[in-house]
Amino acid sequence: MALFTFQTSINLKRHSRLAVTNSQKPQRHFSPPNQSVAAVVFGDAAQQSRLYPLTKRRSEGAVPVAGSYRLIDAVISNCINSNITKVYALTQFNSTSLNSHLSRAYSAGLLANQEFLEVIAAYQSPEDANWFQGTADAMRRCLWVLEQHPAVEFLVLPGHHLYKMDYQKLLEAHRSTRADVTVSVLGSTRDYNTGFGSFNVGSGNRVIGFEKEPDLIPVFQVQGSKFNEKFSSMGIYVINRQVMIKLLKESFPKANDLKNEVIPGAISLGLKVHAYQFDGYWEDMRSIEAYYNANMESTKKTNMKYNFHDRDFPLYTLPRHLPPSLVTDAAITDSTIGDGCILNRCSIRSSVIGPRTRVGDGAVIQDSVIMGSDIYQSVHEQSIGVGEGSFIKKSIIDKNVRIGKNVKIINRDNVLEGNNETNGYIIKSGIVVVLRGAVFPDESIL
Amino acid sequence: MALFTFQTSINLKRHSRLAVTNSQKPQRHFSPPNQSVAAVVFGDAAQQSRLYPLTKRRSEGAVPVAGSYRLIDAVISNCINSNITKVYALTQFNSTSLNSHLSRAYSAGLLANQEFLEVIAAYQSPEDANWFQGTADAMRRCLWVLEQHPAVEFLVLPGHHLYKMDYQKLLEAHRSTRADVTVSVLGSTRDYNTGFGSFNVGSGNRVIGFEKEPDLIPVFQVQGSKFNEKFSSMGIYVINRQVMIKLLKESFPKANDLKNEVIPGAISLGLKVHAYQFDGYWEDMRSIEAYYNANMESTKKTNMKYNFHDRDFPLYTLPRHLPPSLVTDAAITDSTIGDGCILNRCSIRSSVIGPRTRVGDGAVIQDSVIMGSDIYQSVHEQSIGVGEGSFIKKSIIDKNVRIGKNVKIINRDNVLEGNNETNGYIIKSGIVVVLRGAVFPDESIL
Amino acid sequence: MALFTFQTSINLKRHSRLAVTNSQKPQRHFSPPNQSVAAVVFGDAAQQSRLYPLTKRRSEGAVPVAGSYRLIDAVISNCINSNITKVYALTQFNSTSLNSHLSRAYSAGLLANQEFLEVIAAYQSPEDANWFQGTADAMRRCLWVLEQHPAVEFLVLPGHHLYKMDYQKLLEAHRSTRADVTVSVLGSTRDYNTGFGSFNVGSGNRVIGFEKEPDLIPVFQVQGSKFNEKFSSMGIYVINRQVMIKLLKESFPKANDLKNEVIPGAISLGLKVHAYQFDGYWEDMRSIEAYYNANMESTKKTNMKYNFHDRDFPLYTLPRHLPPSLVTDAAITDSTIGDGCILNRCSIRSSVIGPRTRVGDGAVIQDSVIMGSDIYQSVHEQSIGVGEGSFIKKSIIDKNVRIGKNVKIINRDNVLEGNNETNGYIIKSGIVVVLRGAVFPDESIL
Amino acid sequence: MALFTFQTSINLKRHSRLAVTNSQKPQRHFSPPNQSVAAVVFGDAAQQSRLYPLTKRRSEGAVPVAGSYRLIDAVISNCINSNITKVYALTQFNSTSLNSHLSRAYSAGLLANQEFLEVIAAYQSPEDANWFQGTADAMRRCLWVLEQHPAVEFLVLPGHHLYKMDYQKLLEAHRSTRADVTVSVLGSTRDYNTGFGSFNVGSGNRVIGFEKEPDLIPVFQVQGSKFNEKFSSMGIYVINRQVMIKLLKESFPKANDLKNEVIPGAISLGLKVHAYQFDGYWEDMRSIEAYYNANMESTKKTNMKYNFHDRDFPLYTLPRHLPPSLVTDAAITDSTIGDGCILNRCSIRSSVIGPRTRVGDGAVIQDSVIMGSDIYQSVHEQSIGVGEGSFIKKSIIDKNVRIGKNVKIINRDNVLEGNNETNGYIIKSGIVVVLRGAVFPDESIL
Repeated sequence: MALFTFQTSINLKRHSRLAVTNSQKPQRHFSPPNQSVAAVVFGDAAQQSRLYPLTKRRSEGAVPVAGSYRLIDAVISNCINSNITKVYALTQFNSTSLNSHLSRAYSAGLLANQEFLEVIAAYQSPEDANWFQGTADAMRRCLWVLEQHPAVEFLVLPGHHLYKMDYQKLLEAHRSTRADVTVSVLGSTRDYNTGFGSFNVGSGNRVIGFEKEPDLIPVFQVQGSKFNEKFSSMGIYVINRQVMIKLLKESFPKANDLKNEVIPGAISLGLKVHAYQFDGYWEDMRSIEAYYNANMESTKKTNMKYNFHDRDFPLYTLPRHLPPSLVTDAAITDSTIGDGCILNRCSIRSSVIGPRTRVGDGAVIQDSVIMGSDIYQSVHEQSIGVGEGSFIKKSIIDKNVRIGKNVKIINRDNVLEGNNETNGYIIKSGIVVVLRGAVFPDESIL
Repeated sequence: MALFTFQTSINLKRHSRLAVTNSQKPQRHFSPPNQSVAAVVFGDAAQQSRLYPLTKRRSEGAVPVAGSYRLIDAVISNCINSNITKVYALTQFNSTSLNSHLSRAYSAGLLANQEFLEVIAAYQSPEDANWFQGTADAMRRCLWVLEQHPAVEFLVLPGHHLYKMDYQKLLEAHRSTRADVTVSVLGSTRDYNTGFGSFNVGSGNRVIGFEKEPDLIPVFQVQGSKFNEKFSSMGIYVINRQVMIKLLKESFPKANDLKNEVIPGAISLGLKVHAYQFDGYWEDMRSIEAYYNANMESTKKTNMKYNFHDRDFPLYTLPRHLPPSLVTDAAITDSTIGDGCILNRCSIRSSVIGPRTRVGDGAVIQDSVIMGSDIYQSVHEQSIGVGEGSFIKKSIIDKNVRIGKNVKIINRDNVLEGNNETNGYIIKSGIVVVLRGAVFPDESIL
Repeated sequence: MALFTFQTSINLKRHSRLAVTNSQKPQRHFSPPNQSVAAVVFGDAAQQSRLYPLTKRRSEGAVPVAGSYRLIDAVISNCINSNITKVYALTQFNSTSLNSHLSRAYSAGLLANQEFLEVIAAYQSPEDANWFQGTADAMRRCLWVLEQHPAVEFLVLPGHHLYKMDYQKLLEAHRSTRADVTVSVLGSTRDYNTGFGSFNVGSGNRVIGFEKEPDLIPVFQVQGSKFNEKFSSMGIYVINRQVMIKLLKESFPKANDLKNEVIPGAISLGLKVHAYQFDGYWEDMRSIEAYYNANMESTKKTNMKYNFHDRDFPLYTLPRHLPPSLVTDAAITDSTIGDGCILNRCSIRSSVIGPRTRVGDGAVIQDSVIMGSDIYQSVHEQSIGVGEGSFIKKSIIDKNVRIGKNVKIINRDNVLEGNNETNGYIIKSGIVVVLRGAVFPDESIL
Repeated sequence: MALFTFQTSINLKRHSRLAVTNSQKPQRHFSPPNQSVAAVVFGDAAQQSRLYPLTKRRSEGAVPVAGSYRLIDAVISNCINSNITKVYALTQFNSTSLNSHLSRAYSAGLLANQEFLEVIAAYQSPEDANWFQGTADAMRRCLWVLEQHPAVEFLVLPGHHLYKMDYQKLLEAHRSTRADVTVSVLGSTRDYNTGFGSFNVGSGNRVIGFEKEPDLIPVFQVQGSKFNEKFSSMGIYVINRQVMIKLLKESFPKANDLKNEVIPGAISLGLKVHAYQFDGYWEDMRSIEAYYNANMESTKKTNMKYNFHDRDFPLYTLPRHLPPSLVTDAAITDSTIGDGCILNRCSIRSSVIGPRTRVGDGAVIQDSVIMGSDIYQSVHEQSIGVGEGSFIKKSIIDKNVRIGKNVKIINRDNVLEGNNETNGYIIKSGIVVVLRGAVFPDESIL
């Protein structure tokens, strides 16, 4: 006891000498991790989707890609890998599949109120019984939701592009330049329109003008500024929260569109708009052909432009509970095979075989994308899948398609563009696209 | 080794004597549990909601009730307690809050593909750019989703009623009578319209006629049948899958409404429509007054009509991660207190105090419903909540309301009905309803 | 208003005529679904595991099987498919892997307190600082936990058997005979001991005696009863809760073992012990050879004894987040392929290829089980997996093994039994078993 | 089309002028977030727990605190708030409750393989059939698990302390000084031993000696170093991965204890061991009295030393699905009220009322901690809780205690220390501690 008394007296002296200490004050103002940014992802692309008929029943963001994924997984994975933990997904067009995917894959919060993703589907309200009239209208009508999160910046993202980007770097650039708005642009222009227009960039990366798609019509050029160089917009914007609210409510209260109205408006008002250049692979799936090529990327082992198998910057998606694929006797070349497949004596070359695909004896699949089936069929069912002896070449087979025996889907007549939707398929750029749930009887040839 | 050989020979003899055995065959046809029924819950009530202004920013199903719950939790909990594991919620009107609640509380599946609840928000498609035009239109447009589930029956449920019902009993009745449609009716008629019309029921519980709201106009009476007795519909229908598809697609392809068109149509077509009588407490929240009274139910310890605290038939909802309520010095009578509240020296009588409510020194809350706050405020913030010395009587205070010091919300002038929406409140049946996010400066009196 | 008044008067008359009604009373006593049974699964088998070296770092229940699963998944899936929602898993021996698997795959509760699986790892307490001394000791020491659940019966299950069984039928048999204990027995005896002894069954399926393993020594025969027939025990017992408590605490308070002490004791005490015969496929993995054969079952498309691909009685496990398998040029015959594999120009015959397996150019895998890798390697890493030109025949390759180039694992000398653990492998029944994490340099031959 | 051709030619020129760009390369080496550190939390404290009898059935980390939490939640919340996403919890002593809490609250991973917490319960293995012999032994035996995670540093944390600390700052200090080991020390010494000994710190925060508890015996002082100042260890160590492996396997392969053997050993070997000073509130619950006082902290609104209600550095725990508390008529002063309570006409002063507590009419609870009940009882059950007219003063009532009517738990005889465990309670420092599940008949006085 005496010792303790002695110690007590020692205790009256407080140490303050250690240089490396942790004072209580910073703790009190400790900022919750990853909370300064809220991402707003637009799940829908235009109503006139360039990926039709893949978008007949789903929005572009929900289109399956590379066997296991949905297009929107690329952008959501970018958010996760960039440690952005608050994401709103605004959806409206053919959104059932997308909402279901997002809710099941991403909306369950690990901890407390730090839930990851919140889907905001278009809705009617007493104030406005219309659909969202565009991206700006959608954001304006959802501001009451977005404002609940104490974000400092909004990160606006289209949901249907395939690329890998560390958004933290974009945010750092935005903050270090103290910009009002930072727009992300492509380092190299494309031989086609991105759909988001182009920015004219002056000195110090300051954006001084905007040209609108599709003809790259010069919308305006800030007076007195020397024309410098033109960069394609990626439709990605970092906007300070207060700036966003002011633009939507005060400056342009009637504007429906961000890309052609609000952002150019911000430039013309003289706000500090900066450009951030992105140099990596970026694919906007502007056509069935582009979509087809992006899928083919996933079958590559070398020289891949987009790595679907990257451990360090992984692509997330909804995990499935499926048994491993059962292969009876298959020769498989340069292909990816999803889980839960049943592959009989067949040959698969340069193809993407999605989950739960069944391929019958003697079937050949070549240069094709088979999306697979939503329903796991037991071994003795035969309906969904590719029947015995069938041959599929350069085709995209949407989900739940039933292809009978000895069917040939080979674009026999070398059609470049053709619409046979009533018969279950469409041909675009020479690629046969078979509609979801289509049925082809035995011996069909197309 | 010899022994083993000996045993092998024994093995050739198979036992088949035990009466109680488990043969392999039934396993192969083993039916997945709880899969025969899919529930379809309508999250929205009419656009002209009787609960306005509580429904200014949310649909009826999303209105908070009894402090911790949303109205729709009652119906979803009925499903869970009835062991129905596949639920679709169709939403459209002011659906953001409802979708978010449902996705976070119920959509994460425990196992495999047995996910519990899927929200289907209204969406545009290439085929139909309109909103859902009614319950029948909504179901018809969602059939492609509903059909993916191998259900035998659909159980149609309005999402904004407060009652406890074991749907399995309803389903057993439906199956045992081999009905095409079974409608659930109230055992006692009400002194008001349920909004779902009335059924005339003949012998053997066969439904022989329908009368429409609001005037209970006899729509028809099956010829030759003797009028029997009239029962109020609860808007709950069990419909065989194939019958539903035929009714929606073939018999009444233009019908928008289930209750006034498709169900009466089924009766008039001579389908086998049976009635199932429900005798328990059922509240449809047809008015602010009814809503107010239902909330008051949750503060009762005895003679309660609806037990919010029932362990054996529990009410589910989204769990919150909140600290316990901190009470400095409160006299609390006949009230429920949510978690995360901070109650100073105050008096609370016959009131529902929702989560994260802050009440200042000297405040008095009486006969009121305080919904609380969406944001947990730290101890030293003062903004959202009830300020010092304020007095609240017979009022419904929506979420995130800021009431200053010495405010009186007491309906001073004994108004019965009054609309002061611009000032942040409405009076209905003498109950003051304060709008979400309203602000009342110090010393306000109303 | 007049109309309403009129309606009110009508309301005074209560309907009571409908035969099919739902009275409030049954609701009050509504029993929570699936709550009458608690399953107790023993995750560990004997310390001297017959599956060594697969059990060097894990218990038998955690041994990977059929590529994607763990042995214990079979029993847990039986529980899920039998709608048993409360499962306790008792573990002790090499339990890290098993606990991790169970917690991640099954312990997250969908709803409220209805969590599915609770792992109880052996623990020290002030009362008892020893490990569990056997199944009876383990249950006795966990009774304070088990008793918290208001179960009526305990269903005791070994965790390392492969079979499909609807436990509800077993429970129905138990209840309909009003037995104290019901034991599940094999319909056909085996050419080896199950390890759980045999029961002598008299008339009415009443168990009248027990013979102990390994020599089937008659332990006792109830006096006066005529010897009838002998059935192998499956180690599965349904025991009434109160009977269990009494047996463990009062009748046999020192017994450590259920199968050889408590259950035979119950028979000898004259308790009502009944037998329930199971006729399906049942495999207890009593040897490396049996384990090997069970894996080979998963590669069969027809005549399979255990269907790993059954949609209606599915096998659950932890879902993985892996990309589809990338196949450069493989000839695959009668094999299953897990997800996340990278298969170069190789040949795979009659093999199970687990998740994330990498196989190099020119490699041949035949009649083997490759468990795969715990770590997803990117395309350019080469370490874990099977190197170029290597040949693997009739082997079991545990996880994370690194096989260099031109390695031959073919049991060159046709050894039947051999222990080369220091060199990374053991041979049992002519099957080479390579240890977890073993490394074989280029050109190794064994 | 001409325009497009024109654009194509433009495209050949690549832009490279923007200063702010995102090149593809950094992406490839993108490091997964928060992966460099793995935290190792020891869930058990000493076997001779100073918190007995609260630790009769649970380890110290699992002791309920402040109504809704468990002690270990403080440390796990520190990890979450410090953005550390890989945590191992090593448990052994009375671990059932702790394992269940941790698995259910923290082990479900939001995304992919980024699961948050993995419980490693003590286990037997073929190599070692003993329990963990101490913290060093536990870590050594779990190294094969810990090594699977590509961590650079291990952060070792005792699991039963109450404090808020941003571990990122500790890690930054560790990295910036390029230390082998960084130990966290208290800024002010205590009037009691922390149980982790003291470090002698020289210039540059270099640790030059260690003194062991309980007598602060100087264990050693690095030769030639001038004695400087003594700081109490918090038992928190940051250790480089390779250093840890070498210390455990090579330098001190027989050491069982980190604090008294391995860490002092590292200093004596001349490794670079640095001190990091922590100045905030830190409570090690060294006694029932300290535990009692820490609970009282949660009832404070001002001058609180540990803020249980802090939004920005929140305390996480397992969310419960409970209805709001139902209060009939209670005067509540300076207390916290958990959810799911039923409080009748009672008086509660300066107390912590845990979840699902029932208090009868006329009962008075004062200066006490009532842990509540594990089972939600319906309104008409009376068993668990505090009966009518009972009086509880300065007591800790463990879970599931049944206190009858007119019981007085007031320490009538002013006992300072007393053991009445057979009668269901113990008195420590004048505080009555009632054991879990104890029953006090009507009119009992103690």
